[in-house]
Amino acid sequence: MIYLDNNATTRVLPEVLEVMLPFYTEFWGNPSSLHPFGARIAPHIDKAREKVAGLIGAQRGSEITFTSGGTESNHLALRGVLAAHPEKRHIVTTAVEHSSILMLCDPLQKEGYEITFLNVDENGNVDLEEVKKSIRPETALVSILWANNETGVIFPIDAISKICAEKKVPFHTDAIQAVGKIPIDLKKTEVDLLSISGHKFHAPKGIGALYIRRGTKWMPQTFGGHQERGRRAGTENVTGIIGLGKAAELAYLRLEDKSWEKIGALRNHLEQKLSALSLNFLINGKNSKRLPNTSSLSFAGQNGETMCLLLGEADIAASTGSACSAGSLEPSHVLKAMQANSKQARGTIRISLSADTTVAEINSATECIEKIIRRLKKN
Amino acid sequence: MIYLDNNATTRVLPEVLEVMLPFYTEFWGNPSSLHPFGARIAPHIDKAREKVAGLIGAQRGSEITFTSGGTESNHLALRGVLAAHPEKRHIVTTAVEHSSILMLCDPLQKEGYEITFLNVDENGNVDLEEVKKSIRPETALVSILWANNETGVIFPIDAISKICAEKKVPFHTDAIQAVGKIPIDLKKTEVDLLSISGHKFHAPKGIGALYIRRGTKWMPQTFGGHQERGRRAGTENVTGIIGLGKAAELAYLRLEDKSWEKIGALRNHLEQKLSALSLNFLINGKNSKRLPNTSSLSFAGQNGETMCLLLGEADIAASTGSACSAGSLEPSHVLKAMQANSKQARGTIRISLSADTTVAEINSATECIEKIIRRLKKN
Repeated sequence: MIYLDNNATTRVLPEVLEVMLPFYTEFWGNPSSLHPFGARIAPHIDKAREKVAGLIGAQRGSEITFTSGGTESNHLALRGVLAAHPEKRHIVTTAVEHSSILMLCDPLQKEGYEITFLNVDENGNVDLEEVKKSIRPETALVSILWANNETGVIFPIDAISKICAEKKVPFHTDAIQAVGKIPIDLKKTEVDLLSISGHKFHAPKGIGALYIRRGTKWMPQTFGGHQERGRRAGTENVTGIIGLGKAAELAYLRLEDKSWEKIGALRNHLEQKLSALSLNFLINGKNSKRLPNTSSLSFAGQNGETMCLLLGEADIAASTGSACSAGSLEPSHVLKAMQANSKQARGTIRISLSADTTVAEINSATECIEKIIRRLKKN
Repeated sequence: MIYLDNNATTRVLPEVLEVMLPFYTEFWGNPSSLHPFGARIAPHIDKAREKVAGLIGAQRGSEITFTSGGTESNHLALRGVLAAHPEKRHIVTTAVEHSSILMLCDPLQKEGYEITFLNVDENGNVDLEEVKKSIRPETALVSILWANNETGVIFPIDAISKICAEKKVPFHTDAIQAVGKIPIDLKKTEVDLLSISGHKFHAPKGIGALYIRRGTKWMPQTFGGHQERGRRAGTENVTGIIGLGKAAELAYLRLEDKSWEKIGALRNHLEQKLSALSLNFLINGKNSKRLPNTSSLSFAGQNGETMCLLLGEADIAASTGSACSAGSLEPSHVLKAMQANSKQARGTIRISLSADTTVAEINSATECIEKIIRRLKKN
């Protein structure tokens, strides 16, 4: 199989599984226990915490709270900040967030929150002036994603976080697609909260984290045990946490060792090869800063779902956009916001690479895409 | 090590880990993907769902929603039912629930909910007449645990669920300590929602489930993807789910093959041996129906924490009560509710067995407890 759907999920690295296994077979106590068999596990959790903090340049491990994944992290960020500012009833976000933010906005609106959805231009960018203008005295929170899961477009989070800091409004970023793919140094930003999902960078599914900068007004949403220093009750997903720690450590190394330059070059190679074939397609977000591994391609008059199924028959895994909205007949909300006409949006496939991707795989995929388009055009 | 803290957490069985591993190494796609590499995982999730349904006698797999563990299941049950009945502002529960219910009651009270905490008698039992009397027209939900995590006392959930059904009030039970330890057949009860935690019956930590009987008015609390048929958004913890399914299958077999008679006999053996030693202790809930594996022992004038630490030095893992409140200096809320004087409550240790426990281990533990008590009495 040629796996080009790494924005949906990634392979658990053998090194990650290797460090997890002893916590299934040998060190399986409850970290909250008084007895040494359980209690000795707690320091391993804190070591993992430090590694996750290291990957994003957080000042302290204690700013990391482990969660069950990206969706929970996003919910915990928004719900926790809103609960801490009950008098403020306005939220700023964008029209191109992941569904775990956008669909949470529905119940929030029903609860009486007013929400400003910032638009993006045809390159997928937000206007910093618009961000500035959207913030009001009653704004409880600004939540803007770091990198788009469908197009890979990277927002100027550093600048946005500074605007929020100047206006003294808490700023959350859904960095689920950015973490491990681009260097992040939170010490140099004014980000208050940041969401992480492990399975996007070779940790297992079912584990994530929420960064909460020290001093941020935020309230817990799960109650019971004193796990995660009272921030999230419930027995810890120990093996998941250990795996996330190792994956964070390895992701940090890949950011240092030029792996991402190679991935970016392969992605560019794919786009250049396809461009040379005059297949009548657009690269979404082409004129923007993008994640090095992501290519969102819109083929005029085609259907992305059909293309993905045909790629699947050739044992190539790609997607139309977010796995979370797979099967939806609506064109992507992200591409709609970028003003692509819906015919174009419907013909979109997303190719997302990892460090495992080889040049031979990219060459095969390119040839296969060409064949599929020529075949579909004949019909 | 002699591990006698199985109500805190259990060993992941090798058979459980074995079926999980391929989902780390080989079948690691995203179940929501369109391509076969991801999509072929979804049926495995549904098979696990059927196995969990089988363990509790649920009519349909679709009544099972996977969660990140028991605390989330309890929260999701309460929050989901309350959201579906916004006009009803009264909740009935007991004074001896797990902290993940009791501590959720604090914010609920702040939100304006009135909560009736039913008391228990000195045997740890609730009065069914009290349950009946507590339900009012404005009652949104009754939530009562199936088996107490500290004492093992089993509540008459069948009868309680029937009272609630007659009064047409939704009934949730935190069955986290009961599932896998006593036969549960939901088809024969009127339970509407039931919480499950995997790591209490040899599945990994970080995975749980919530049973929601078909037709129960309940609203999702996490939004985004359409996972779990819209009941809980977020990429599934695939390996955790597969492990939970296998653990449920094995737990069902252990309920069939008389394993629990052996465990109960060993627990009784422990209590009889200790009783023969005239150590001046009480067995909490002795006159009640109890989980076969649990023994809560209160030694007059002693300190449970000290006893556990001394047991730990002898490589025996036991606990004072809930791992979730370990380190708390307060005597257990469960024992307080059972009217034990606080001196007695402070001297409590909880011994909890599993099918792994041997008679040699119980004999060693008994001797060790005797030595510790005689040594502490000398001081």
